[in-house]
Amino acid sequence: MSRITAVETHDIRFPTSRELDGSDAMHPDPDYSAAYLVLRTDEAGTEGHGFAFTIGRGNEVQVAALNALRPQLVGRRLDDICADPGTVYRALTADSQLRWLGPEKGVIHMAVGAAVNAVWDLAARRAGKPLWRLLAEAPPEWLAAQADLRYLEDVLPRERAVELLRAGRRDAGRRTAALLRTGYPAYTTSPGWLGYSDERLTRLARRAVADGFTQIKLKVGADLADDIRRLRAARAAVGPDIRIAIDANQRWHVRQAIEWTRALAEFAPYWIEEPTSPDDILGHAAVRRAVAPVKVASGEHAQNRVIVKQLLQAGAIDVLQLDAARVGGVNENLAVLLLAADRGIPVCPHAGGVGLCELVQHLAMFDYVALSGSTRDRAVEYVDHLHEHFTDPVRITGGHYAAPSAPGFSARMRPESLARYRYPDGEFWAADRAGRAAGGRRDTERTVETA
Amino acid sequence: MSRITAVETHDIRFPTSRELDGSDAMHPDPDYSAAYLVLRTDEAGTEGHGFAFTIGRGNEVQVAALNALRPQLVGRRLDDICADPGTVYRALTADSQLRWLGPEKGVIHMAVGAAVNAVWDLAARRAGKPLWRLLAEAPPEWLAAQADLRYLEDVLPRERAVELLRAGRRDAGRRTAALLRTGYPAYTTSPGWLGYSDERLTRLARRAVADGFTQIKLKVGADLADDIRRLRAARAAVGPDIRIAIDANQRWHVRQAIEWTRALAEFAPYWIEEPTSPDDILGHAAVRRAVAPVKVASGEHAQNRVIVKQLLQAGAIDVLQLDAARVGGVNENLAVLLLAADRGIPVCPHAGGVGLCELVQHLAMFDYVALSGSTRDRAVEYVDHLHEHFTDPVRITGGHYAAPSAPGFSARMRPESLARYRYPDGEFWAADRAGRAAGGRRDTERTVETA
Repeated sequence: MSRITAVETHDIRFPTSRELDGSDAMHPDPDYSAAYLVLRTDEAGTEGHGFAFTIGRGNEVQVAALNALRPQLVGRRLDDICADPGTVYRALTADSQLRWLGPEKGVIHMAVGAAVNAVWDLAARRAGKPLWRLLAEAPPEWLAAQADLRYLEDVLPRERAVELLRAGRRDAGRRTAALLRTGYPAYTTSPGWLGYSDERLTRLARRAVADGFTQIKLKVGADLADDIRRLRAARAAVGPDIRIAIDANQRWHVRQAIEWTRALAEFAPYWIEEPTSPDDILGHAAVRRAVAPVKVASGEHAQNRVIVKQLLQAGAIDVLQLDAARVGGVNENLAVLLLAADRGIPVCPHAGGVGLCELVQHLAMFDYVALSGSTRDRAVEYVDHLHEHFTDPVRITGGHYAAPSAPGFSARMRPESLARYRYPDGEFWAADRAGRAAGGRRDTERTVETA
Repeated sequence: MSRITAVETHDIRFPTSRELDGSDAMHPDPDYSAAYLVLRTDEAGTEGHGFAFTIGRGNEVQVAALNALRPQLVGRRLDDICADPGTVYRALTADSQLRWLGPEKGVIHMAVGAAVNAVWDLAARRAGKPLWRLLAEAPPEWLAAQADLRYLEDVLPRERAVELLRAGRRDAGRRTAALLRTGYPAYTTSPGWLGYSDERLTRLARRAVADGFTQIKLKVGADLADDIRRLRAARAAVGPDIRIAIDANQRWHVRQAIEWTRALAEFAPYWIEEPTSPDDILGHAAVRRAVAPVKVASGEHAQNRVIVKQLLQAGAIDVLQLDAARVGGVNENLAVLLLAADRGIPVCPHAGGVGLCELVQHLAMFDYVALSGSTRDRAVEYVDHLHEHFTDPVRITGGHYAAPSAPGFSARMRPESLARYRYPDGEFWAADRAGRAAGGRRDTERTVETA
């Protein structure tokens, strides 16, 4: 009987702030980071990888939360957790003392998500399938049992979940073939970071169109005159037919969000993303009513399925941007996908960061093949950063994510990257400190340049 | 120029699970704990104390979050932080990397609350006043500037906050005198823990009435037959005129909450507390519409002011139960009190745990003296646990909290308690481990017995 024998954790940080990659109105200098976890087993070749994404300081707090889950993980039998990954999800979210730290939100819930995603990575590797295919080929009743429907009974009874999943399987073979042929649509945020010059923005926006993307995204919200200038430049660069989404990253209060979005309306933005606090469901609903036909998109900071339920109940969003590593992992995201499918709301997952593209592509592809059955008005965010650190990086061609074929959740980081960027003792950070101590120029290694 | 010179942190845990004190339907075995922080200064006799409350496992994660705030605290000038504690609050919540861990929720936000409350403790000590008096005597404009009104502009513009605070000051002297004479109303949860026998429940309920309490609270939600039996016993013990609140601690989904509460209606419960997920604003509203005249109370797990805003906008609650240590400290709770005062919703703060009674009494007393001006339908929760570990413990007489007179926020734990219950190396835990290793009975020291 093979078991989980150890849980390894790593504090991994990349010095992205030095190039202003990832800069937005609320996060001017992120150092993209991962609180990374490996499930070791006594079965040769079997392991599971997962991580929470953070943006630098505090990643050690996230690692402490991963460590707090270790006693719940070590010793579990692989046969049990592969047959029912939900047992791990339920045990971790139900820990009667740990749950006080959330409940089901923030640091402790992201830790649960990392561990649960590692279990799914392990299960998919052991099944010899990429996760999207494992999910798409699983029985609807089993998937409905994996989905966390607690607190959702008022809008999504279990019978309705099973019904949606059964309906989603019709013609799944045809959609699998289409997915393997053309991939899943992507949009790109690489041109639009707030810290980039207009010249760089224009150059990257043109390249995005040349590369086959039909949607790009710009960060906004720090200064209205700047936003007007940048959006004008972007529109000039891409022409009238490419969608330009804008993203305020929570910068505004409700009235500001309405006024600012209206002031940018002449450039026909496709959606306004996170116009205000991600917790403000009723605020999002007020913004949506006021800025139509500009759509409202949100969800990357939705802490759990209960917030998503209400965003849909309140008519607060047009587009749901689930995140693979913010909530409690695959089991909770199955519920999120079911909520969206039930309402017919398109899901355009949040990605970027470290490894988020690698994860969310599986959820979107499962949704297309075996749940919503559609890619209409759907696209997975793509950012051209840090993929080189993964053993199974995403592959983008013609503005589409190619379907992963390697077994697992694409969650595994290369051992040499773990060794180099481990904080504070990895080679990069040790050399960086030594350089500073010597008074020399800091190491501005361009790990993530996209231009 | 005196400054903060060091930030000490402590992982303090009390073995409360061994007596089932604090047991409820979701938390059967809490070990009441504090992630405790001390601001040391270079000014003789000046220091600040604060803490986050947790219930055991994971307290080390909370301490890691306190440690992550240290660079933002050390070196600050005491004159600056006493003149404007909000500078610390704003710096901590605005940290562009740490905020990703919330934003403004869960572990990182509770850490901010602990640090901010320690700053207010220090400021009140330095002013030689208990915190309630410092707040009640502060200029309305200054208080409004201290309140965090971000994301609240749609319901509470700053001018309205100033107006409420100015109106609250009328006749404040008369209310101060009344407060010093009679104290602030309390209700008690001590009889009602889920793990207690009916005999113990009955005995403690009778004692509560004899002690002058006019409201008690019972935990419910694990088993309906048990709840009916326990509520019948409680009603028999206290008679028809004492309010009995019931608390489901998030156990139910919306329909269950409605059905279960209706099934207990014959015992005339005063309020049903946390009937469902604390994140489910619209769910609370649905429950409230269905169970009237039983009131709906919630708020101890409201992660921040944005959730409180929506609970009030949606008509989701009759009673707001703010918590002193769940949100970002005094600056955010000033906003919460203003939101409630603006809507005329009574605030009955959550307390119990470790030191929560000590903290919230100050907020409630300030609200009475200088904001809402009323104690009608208001009472602070009281639980007779762990007060002996504080240097300025609450004093209860005749079912009322006596107004604290010692300078500060009553947040300071006794040094010998810190030494004894520090986890895992304090005397209690070291002895406990040694006892277990020796195969003997574990130390069931009755630190918290109330009967």
